[in-house]
Amino acid sequence: MTVRSPLATPFPDLPAVDGVTPRVARAGYKDWGRCDLTLVSLVEGATVAGVTTQSRCPSPEVEWCRDALALGRARALVVNAGNSNAFTGSRGRAAVEAIAARTAAHLGCQPSDVFVASTGVIGVPLPIDKAEAGLDAAFAALPCSWEDATNTIGTTDTFPKAATTRAFIGGTAVTLVGIIKGSGMIAPDMATMLGFVFTDAAVEPAILQEMLETANRQTFSCITVDSDTSTSDTVLAFATGKAANAPLTGWDDAGADAFQAALTDLCRQLAHLVVRDGEGATKFIEIRVSGAASDASAHRIALSIANSPLVKTAIAGEDANWGRVVMAVGKAGEPAERDKLSISFGGVEVAREGRVVDGYDEGPVAAHLTGQEIAVAVDLGLGDGRATVWTCDLTHGYITINADYRS
Amino acid sequence: MTVRSPLATPFPDLPAVDGVTPRVARAGYKDWGRCDLTLVSLVEGATVAGVTTQSRCPSPEVEWCRDALALGRARALVVNAGNSNAFTGSRGRAAVEAIAARTAAHLGCQPSDVFVASTGVIGVPLPIDKAEAGLDAAFAALPCSWEDATNTIGTTDTFPKAATTRAFIGGTAVTLVGIIKGSGMIAPDMATMLGFVFTDAAVEPAILQEMLETANRQTFSCITVDSDTSTSDTVLAFATGKAANAPLTGWDDAGADAFQAALTDLCRQLAHLVVRDGEGATKFIEIRVSGAASDASAHRIALSIANSPLVKTAIAGEDANWGRVVMAVGKAGEPAERDKLSISFGGVEVAREGRVVDGYDEGPVAAHLTGQEIAVAVDLGLGDGRATVWTCDLTHGYITINADYRS
Repeated sequence: MTVRSPLATPFPDLPAVDGVTPRVARAGYKDWGRCDLTLVSLVEGATVAGVTTQSRCPSPEVEWCRDALALGRARALVVNAGNSNAFTGSRGRAAVEAIAARTAAHLGCQPSDVFVASTGVIGVPLPIDKAEAGLDAAFAALPCSWEDATNTIGTTDTFPKAATTRAFIGGTAVTLVGIIKGSGMIAPDMATMLGFVFTDAAVEPAILQEMLETANRQTFSCITVDSDTSTSDTVLAFATGKAANAPLTGWDDAGADAFQAALTDLCRQLAHLVVRDGEGATKFIEIRVSGAASDASAHRIALSIANSPLVKTAIAGEDANWGRVVMAVGKAGEPAERDKLSISFGGVEVAREGRVVDGYDEGPVAAHLTGQEIAVAVDLGLGDGRATVWTCDLTHGYITINADYRS
Repeated sequence: MTVRSPLATPFPDLPAVDGVTPRVARAGYKDWGRCDLTLVSLVEGATVAGVTTQSRCPSPEVEWCRDALALGRARALVVNAGNSNAFTGSRGRAAVEAIAARTAAHLGCQPSDVFVASTGVIGVPLPIDKAEAGLDAAFAALPCSWEDATNTIGTTDTFPKAATTRAFIGGTAVTLVGIIKGSGMIAPDMATMLGFVFTDAAVEPAILQEMLETANRQTFSCITVDSDTSTSDTVLAFATGKAANAPLTGWDDAGADAFQAALTDLCRQLAHLVVRDGEGATKFIEIRVSGAASDASAHRIALSIANSPLVKTAIAGEDANWGRVVMAVGKAGEPAERDKLSISFGGVEVAREGRVVDGYDEGPVAAHLTGQEIAVAVDLGLGDGRATVWTCDLTHGYITINADYRS
């Protein structure tokens, strides 16, 4: 990994999740010494839900997962790092099928019980021989720590990103652990680059899918690093049932709301970690939009601000340049009335009713902008629509990483 | 002006346009020694057409021009540089009204015959006293060259941008001259930042408006520097009638097509110049999309590629990273089928039917990318829709300019 993001947080203490066994191996997808294949085995009976990229050019892994998700069962997850296998035609599809078949043979399950995700360079078919040898090595390896697994799914990530939470379903405590990778090409349309949630809770696939989609709408779909939606975005949630709670089958079950809340909380933590590892990021930026015509309109306005290179560079330069926020609201194509617009930075109102506040004192705003956690709030003054998104600033670091790195 | 863009072109020889008189003065909107107020007087009887930003937060100048355009007559254009007067509430509106009134008093015309545009910092009301004194100074000044006028409308521009062309209407030769400014906050939704076209042709306002909108769709609406649509985008076309051609009143008039072609050609030249002065630009990039479901779909896909920071940084790094082009096609939300997609750089096909071409030789592509003029072509393989857009690369220069400059 390269220079650690200044916004990095320490790797958390993560509990084991009953029924989940991670292992890693070196398949050698790139000329590097590190492990690059992650194998997570799941106990028989585990369920799965997932959300994937809305890209019209998805990777064969994404297509494979979509088909397998329809069955709702999982026995293994295989993650390849260093080669996304995207845009590789029938050869890419063959690689995914070979991985699923080899894994299924090891586990004595169906290939459709195996979920596959890959990340790295686009356009190079994943070498099947390396994948199969890597899988064999992983199955022969001892189980590894969550930290090793998280490091192994990473590519341009500068720190390993994971989170945990617990919830009660009825009287049963259940555990959730999530690991995630992503730093650039981050503007998830349904999910972020690659994220995986594991829980020992017993949750039927249909309700798990609804819960993951609900969490996703409020978390992964609310972050952006660079507006570039990946071909490979995938978030999967696996539930082993080993906690032996009364299985969740619908929203009216005891503990369903608590589990949804825990899942959303976990996904939000993971989503924030991706922003904190945004390529070149030096500031974590929260953008809150209120008073919009609808929640959907507020979301689009918030993303227009979050994706504006002029807003992001201004914040990088610690410049309280609210004029650029006005510009980004104006270009969003959503209902807005200039003379009802209010803007604040760090809780300090700088503009109200379409112009700078009387007696505006830039001092406290400038002080806020020197920090690492930046809050921008916009009120449209039109309705009740609200949304929050998270992003990072745009710096020389982003240019350096992306004008050199051959993804 | 700061360091000249490496893509700059020499200022062209521009003819006078009969009935058009430019003058400049120093209003002192910023603490600088240069002229910052441009006054262009037009002979009685001149007609006008215009296109303005689609921003929902337009400047009061844009609102003023929209109202005045309905009348189709013009006697003067006033351009202020260093202060955009955008997002300034009623005080901004008062400044525009004062400028129009003062100019009208000098010329003995209606305030609605005066067109006003401003560019620079957002959120600071334009000082009326400076504007009025500047106007008086301009009226007292001798006429100036097109180059002086073009320099005076600029802000972060690194070189003055103008173009000329001629056309025959019936047997009468007419002249068109255009001047333009813009470098950042360039993603014109209907027009680019500030562009002005002057012709001695006689053209009725209604057909002039249709012709300008037609030209705009193929030129200004097809460029982007940074995806950030300005609050102040304005392109106005003034026709003095002094060439004494049979006035153009509709599409069936002799010379209408020729004049439209000349106008579009002029606007394309001006639009390209803005891209060549894109903030931090080192490469001029043409993106051609064909085989799309429709022309509109092709345009949206082309803009998705042109606005992708990962595509733009790859080209800055002279990296033939066609995987990022795939990504940008995929995220556009338009009909696309991965396995029908072809991509070429500099006329060399690199990917076909959803994967890299057999025996791909990166040599000629890498050589093309070392140049200043980059051509990217994408064929969707779906239909007849096609579009071309122009953009520049994304470099450290953009970050330096925008993390420091207080716009």
